[in-house]
Amino acid sequence: MAEDLIPDVLNARCPSRAVLNHVTSRWGLLILIALQDGTLRFSALRRRIGGVSERMLAQSLRLLEDDGFVRRRAHPVVPPHVDYTLTPLGCEVAAKVHALAKLIETNLGQIIAQRKS
Amino acid sequence: MAEDLIPDVLNARCPSRAVLNHVTSRWGLLILIALQDGTLRFSALRRRIGGVSERMLAQSLRLLEDDGFVRRRAHPVVPPHVDYTLTPLGCEVAAKVHALAKLIETNLGQIIAQRKS
Repeated sequence: MAEDLIPDVLNARCPSRAVLNHVTSRWGLLILIALQDGTLRFSALRRRIGGVSERMLAQSLRLLEDDGFVRRRAHPVVPPHVDYTLTPLGCEVAAKVHALAKLIETNLGQIIAQRKS
Repeated sequence: MAEDLIPDVLNARCPSRAVLNHVTSRWGLLILIALQDGTLRFSALRRRIGGVSERMLAQSLRLLEDDGFVRRRAHPVVPPHVDYTLTPLGCEVAAKVHALAKLIETNLGQIIAQRKS
């Protein structure tokens, strides 16, 4: 990113757009919401997020980890144990994503009702 | 939706998840952000959102219209003229999406910097 470029998601060449796509991807946003309750192991996270495959969960977690929103910890125990936690910036992003999801959940009845009209 | 079901995006069968996917789709979220400044014609909206194709813009607009977030108006003039405006609920959703985008834009430097480490 050039120093004089102001980040703008409406600009196709701004790297902010790719980051926005990671946190709003089908599974990325549900991971952020699920991790708001605290650290979770991979298997527990998978149970929390209905319908996600192991492969998609691992892939989406890696993107969030690369962007610095999620921290992965591998514990050197037997059997091995890996867990995931939101970073401070991840917590901020998760709060915004959650606010959006809550707004939709709250208005779901109205959204569905107006579709039929 | 059953009357006794509490909307929950983490539930794979909850219709809120599909709505959340519409507003957080690659182009859906940029449309919501772009329309925050006011009513725009299709062509102006397309110019505002870098990189979107006519087809993807039309498709994403239709989903947002079906959910009641965007209102399409066809003006009976020559030449024909169609424009798009956020509905009141669309404004609320756009504000949440914008807050998320702004957070990422603001922290983009930090996100990119930590990737290199």
